[in-house]
Amino acid sequence: MSEQSTPKTYRSIGTSPVRPDGIDKVTGRANYGADRHLPGMLHGKTLRSPHAHARIRSIDVSEAEKLPGVMAVVTGADFPHLQSAMEEAGESQIDVWDLARNVMARDKVLYHGHAVAAVAATSDAIAEAALAKIRVDYEVLTPVMDIEAAMADNAPLLHEEMRTQGLPAAADRASNVATVIKLARGDLAAGFAAADVVIEREFSTPTVHQGYIEPHAVVADCRENGQATLWCCTQGPFVVRTLTSKVLNWDVSRIKVIPSEIGGGFGAKTTVYQEPVAIMLSLKSGRPVKMVMNREEVFRATGPTSASRIRIKLGANRAGKIMAAEAELKYEAGAFKGSPVMPGCMCVFVSYEMQSFSITGYDVVVNKPKVAAYRAPGAPMAAFAMESMIDEMAHKLAIDPIQFRLDNAVREGSQAVYGPKFPAIGFEACLKQAESHPHYRAPLGANQGRGVAAGFWFNVGMQSSATVNVQEDGSAIVITASPDIGGSRASMALMASEELGIPYERINALVGDTETAGYCDVTGGSRTTFATGMAVIQASKDVIRQMRERAAKVWNVEIDQVSWVDGAAVPAAEVAAEKDLKPLSFAELARNAAHTGGPIAGRASLMAQGAGAGFGVHLCDVEVDPETGKVDIIRYTVIQDAGKAIHPAYVEGQLQGGAVQGIGWALNEEYVYNAQGVMENPAFLDYRMPVALDLPMIDAVIVEVPNPSHPYGVRGVGETPIVPPLGAVANAVHDATQVRFCHLPLNPPRVLAGLQAAGA
Amino acid sequence: MSEQSTPKTYRSIGTSPVRPDGIDKVTGRANYGADRHLPGMLHGKTLRSPHAHARIRSIDVSEAEKLPGVMAVVTGADFPHLQSAMEEAGESQIDVWDLARNVMARDKVLYHGHAVAAVAATSDAIAEAALAKIRVDYEVLTPVMDIEAAMADNAPLLHEEMRTQGLPAAADRASNVATVIKLARGDLAAGFAAADVVIEREFSTPTVHQGYIEPHAVVADCRENGQATLWCCTQGPFVVRTLTSKVLNWDVSRIKVIPSEIGGGFGAKTTVYQEPVAIMLSLKSGRPVKMVMNREEVFRATGPTSASRIRIKLGANRAGKIMAAEAELKYEAGAFKGSPVMPGCMCVFVSYEMQSFSITGYDVVVNKPKVAAYRAPGAPMAAFAMESMIDEMAHKLAIDPIQFRLDNAVREGSQAVYGPKFPAIGFEACLKQAESHPHYRAPLGANQGRGVAAGFWFNVGMQSSATVNVQEDGSAIVITASPDIGGSRASMALMASEELGIPYERINALVGDTETAGYCDVTGGSRTTFATGMAVIQASKDVIRQMRERAAKVWNVEIDQVSWVDGAAVPAAEVAAEKDLKPLSFAELARNAAHTGGPIAGRASLMAQGAGAGFGVHLCDVEVDPETGKVDIIRYTVIQDAGKAIHPAYVEGQLQGGAVQGIGWALNEEYVYNAQGVMENPAFLDYRMPVALDLPMIDAVIVEVPNPSHPYGVRGVGETPIVPPLGAVANAVHDATQVRFCHLPLNPPRVLAGLQAAGA
Repeated sequence: MSEQSTPKTYRSIGTSPVRPDGIDKVTGRANYGADRHLPGMLHGKTLRSPHAHARIRSIDVSEAEKLPGVMAVVTGADFPHLQSAMEEAGESQIDVWDLARNVMARDKVLYHGHAVAAVAATSDAIAEAALAKIRVDYEVLTPVMDIEAAMADNAPLLHEEMRTQGLPAAADRASNVATVIKLARGDLAAGFAAADVVIEREFSTPTVHQGYIEPHAVVADCRENGQATLWCCTQGPFVVRTLTSKVLNWDVSRIKVIPSEIGGGFGAKTTVYQEPVAIMLSLKSGRPVKMVMNREEVFRATGPTSASRIRIKLGANRAGKIMAAEAELKYEAGAFKGSPVMPGCMCVFVSYEMQSFSITGYDVVVNKPKVAAYRAPGAPMAAFAMESMIDEMAHKLAIDPIQFRLDNAVREGSQAVYGPKFPAIGFEACLKQAESHPHYRAPLGANQGRGVAAGFWFNVGMQSSATVNVQEDGSAIVITASPDIGGSRASMALMASEELGIPYERINALVGDTETAGYCDVTGGSRTTFATGMAVIQASKDVIRQMRERAAKVWNVEIDQVSWVDGAAVPAAEVAAEKDLKPLSFAELARNAAHTGGPIAGRASLMAQGAGAGFGVHLCDVEVDPETGKVDIIRYTVIQDAGKAIHPAYVEGQLQGGAVQGIGWALNEEYVYNAQGVMENPAFLDYRMPVALDLPMIDAVIVEVPNPSHPYGVRGVGETPIVPPLGAVANAVHDATQVRFCHLPLNPPRVLAGLQAAGA
Repeated sequence: MSEQSTPKTYRSIGTSPVRPDGIDKVTGRANYGADRHLPGMLHGKTLRSPHAHARIRSIDVSEAEKLPGVMAVVTGADFPHLQSAMEEAGESQIDVWDLARNVMARDKVLYHGHAVAAVAATSDAIAEAALAKIRVDYEVLTPVMDIEAAMADNAPLLHEEMRTQGLPAAADRASNVATVIKLARGDLAAGFAAADVVIEREFSTPTVHQGYIEPHAVVADCRENGQATLWCCTQGPFVVRTLTSKVLNWDVSRIKVIPSEIGGGFGAKTTVYQEPVAIMLSLKSGRPVKMVMNREEVFRATGPTSASRIRIKLGANRAGKIMAAEAELKYEAGAFKGSPVMPGCMCVFVSYEMQSFSITGYDVVVNKPKVAAYRAPGAPMAAFAMESMIDEMAHKLAIDPIQFRLDNAVREGSQAVYGPKFPAIGFEACLKQAESHPHYRAPLGANQGRGVAAGFWFNVGMQSSATVNVQEDGSAIVITASPDIGGSRASMALMASEELGIPYERINALVGDTETAGYCDVTGGSRTTFATGMAVIQASKDVIRQMRERAAKVWNVEIDQVSWVDGAAVPAAEVAAEKDLKPLSFAELARNAAHTGGPIAGRASLMAQGAGAGFGVHLCDVEVDPETGKVDIIRYTVIQDAGKAIHPAYVEGQLQGGAVQGIGWALNEEYVYNAQGVMENPAFLDYRMPVALDLPMIDAVIVEVPNPSHPYGVRGVGETPIVPPLGAVANAVHDATQVRFCHLPLNPPRVLAGLQAAGA
């Protein structure tokens, strides 16, 4: 269902055909990270720290090396010594010094599960036995497990040399605060003074994991000529190549990365863990090495997202206009700097017009695994806080919460908190769609409540390349290096089909590797359909230009006299009549390419600009069991601006999937740590993610306000849907219970305690 | 050593660095056709006809199917019924009806070894056992084993429906002659009347095999979605795709072909044998299937080259000018039409100016395996005959044989026998080089003789594509789908290095598959360095254009103000001075591509025109043992025009390798058949190919007369060197013995018999 139809009509995009990779995935034929087998392949295993914080005095691997079947043992000493340097990596920047130490600890271990050594052996069992023979002498240190402890005076330091960036000068004191961020506009004091109602609250969210089904897996194969091949599940083979080469201090051209199919990433498979280690083991052993994490390793030693503490002060006048807002965001980075607090700061107030605001962000290291990107990194916690405040303010002002948002919503021309003015955006359209949706007026029963929340994500462009190879049977192959996570083979094929004017079924959309495909940044940042799709569109146009040239040659006319209409080269009326010319179809031009100048292929590479911001509004109904505190989601509607939905069914899938992950974050998910800094629930049985039985069918409404920077109006859709659910659920629980919950997750004990406290 | 230096100077081309694939091939890491292993893979085996000519009454596979471990059995009945249709395939045309029947017999078997059924089983042994359980009821027919028998009145017919093409009308009679060809010019009778000396002789050459080291091998993997992947050793993944799809009556886009490394092809790996069968077995079994021929199968059931009978009548005047020439060429096609008699006819008189000639060619089917291309297909036998005649005529006229050739040689502006006028060619230059070479004046001992012969090959252009992907570390990846047989990775890297201005070592030259690489015709026709190289040059120029654009953007100048010099963008003098600009190197532009517009990649596809004709002149010294008739090659020099040698050491390798294959053809190689049409020597022990011990070091002299149609002047070099040796050896034997041998091979029994007959 479409709120605002685009003026153009399309043949292919906007339909929802079966995905090309569907059959292979259903039959089990598709190969994921662990499905690669090479002759002579060894099994690699990682020895992990039993302490959350300790100094490594020494590591003795001699007994492990002696074990028959052990072909290589590596520790941090095997890796090159690197200088600290910030490098671009996907959506964010990364310090290679940190990255290298996260891959393999050197002088210190900084979280329980931190890699300290690895073994390659002829069997899993021998590798495990060898790990047990490695002796590590640790000096155990006090772990720093949360923001408060980390920021306390005299807190134990994770990195003795770390100084806080962004502070005024003279702060030459080691700290667990890596960075302080400031964003501000207007006269805050005047703003609050002009407000009739001011509310201030503090919120917190726990460490949560993306919970992708497929653990990290890699096969490394180093050749005698110095080249290495990696097969791995990743959101971006090129970023794996870049980061692995940084850790090894190799030229990127020594490494070939072949992306396997990927069983979920959600941002977390945009960095490297085992990849450089597997190469080192392969290099030392002269054999291919496979490393596959188990679920416990995924929880303990890959990148979840930040736990957060956010304080917001919000002022509005009686007319329902926001006058001032102040926020302080503290995000855990895990063991190495680099939480998503910056996007958190940029997002916290982004949806609303305001004359004055002040935002302060803190990037704080703690003895937990280094966080990785997770779908709209940093935004859900910020939106949880702000959308709770908006809800409360609307109640205080006795304004319908959607109307309150409409009264303050950013629209085309509004200046975003982070600087630029918005072009056409769909926030208002989504809010209106929500307001008129039957869900919003449906009756509620006892112990039930309804919450509304909005969400925003920037979306990004970045670099993409595409090749379109025309086949002599009238089909076309489309190659990009964007791994297909959410159905991008289908969307690329649809866009090529749209441009070329041939059926979707005649397009073979492939995911290439770092040697055979042009450079593509990660499948992340909701950029693939937008940016890689734009490359596919441009490469298709390149094909069409060549086909028009061929037709012009065949007809002996100028190329300007040939247009491309409905998958065929069409002669201009005057020459068609004069020479009795009939259109030449794609299939005909493809078949005769050898006789008109040779093979036809199109190519495009670009740095995509103008990724359209994505706004969404969620409606959530809950029922709260007053006896147990259990919250059930009984109805849920996602409304989001997709700009233009290329494959509506997969857009709906993104909206539903994002909502479910947000619901899990709101209700149940969290890393539970003991006093020693050991995560106590590193398995899906205890780390409670929502399953189908926990949820109703989620209704997805696609709004289409075209992105003016894209030929079809596409906006990314993958990340925005995880932003509103935390607030939507909490607001619904408030509506059901009249208790305002500011700390997630809203699991039964917490809700019950809240109800009891309110009742008391 | 270079006869005529080109005006340009080069940095990279013309040097001979180590090949990029060298280490992998030396260590055994490189994967050839049989080196692919897939989980669940079955072993495929072929049941072959024990008769050279028989009708198949019935095939009963039921007992084979019952054998435990047998997963699929196929016969001709499993393949689609196709209409006869000529299709382009690499250098030649092929009839898909014939091709399909050669792949798997239907109603008749036409040679000993002809495939009649195939089995896929869980082991080699089970597959073999299953073959033994297939019952074929044959009606044995009389085999037709040579040209005379095939062209005799009332000869048994291989194909009852076959009519001779090219005959005057009313020839509505079935025949074993598939085609008659006529080429003629001038007044032949007048020409012979004006001749002072007329000679007429008949020559014959046996069936010989290319003798590549690697037998044909393929792994087929059919997926439930209807797509199939082939891994095979081939000279052209795209031609395998085309031909396999024709035999199966599939769209090409259902098949992906990945070329393995290739252990020799020489033209013979440009068609399909097991590939469609392996797909059928995989389709039926639902499992991957590997099929690997053994050497006996390679001899019996792949394509050797034609046995031939050639009659030539040559007339010259006393001044040493050729006045007229007449030739009749009869070439065996094997079981299906399509010998290389057409190129034989086009080549037989091609090296010499003549006012009048008449050439008649016959394409004759016999009960032998269908011939395949073999290095300059059809030319060596024609040159054997003509160069023997030239030698004899020179002797009769008492003119030095090189001088006689110089007096009659085609040169720039001469009209080729087959029509067009030659542009700049190097025949005269090669003859002069031969005349002045120390070899030509070196003394000879007792029983020794020296022969001279010339050779020609057209060389072809055809379709090629190339991609050049710039990497952020300042290296570049070059991808083509031209399998690397003779060092083409090295030559592609050299050409990219030359154009881009970066070191050879910074180029990674790859061989792609039919999905990830642009279309390329076969590595054959001596086209790869010429045509695929031209695509690499154009793709590199595409990169340079983009790099100039990026530099112009960085400098805020027009692209016309940026030139490319020595691997760097250089600002025009006036803007450089005005803005204080320094050149930007390839590495700098590569590193910053993300910030100047995105990834940089170049692409080119073309139908290459103007492949320069290749001429060579060989000098051969032999010693003939008068007691045994054994001929030893004691000195051999190859002189050939390469236009411009990109990698001189590999050009020398081509010249030496071609000479060795021609020497084997001249001296020893032949298919020996018994009366039932069974080849009696299907192994390298009995099919005697020359080995290193049989040969002296072969001297290679590269002449460089630039091909005006190529930016560097490149001509193909792979095929011409096999053309002269047959005549050079025979002329040398004549010089040593004064006996003119017209029938190959010159093995000891034949030479001894010739000597005895001459002595008698």
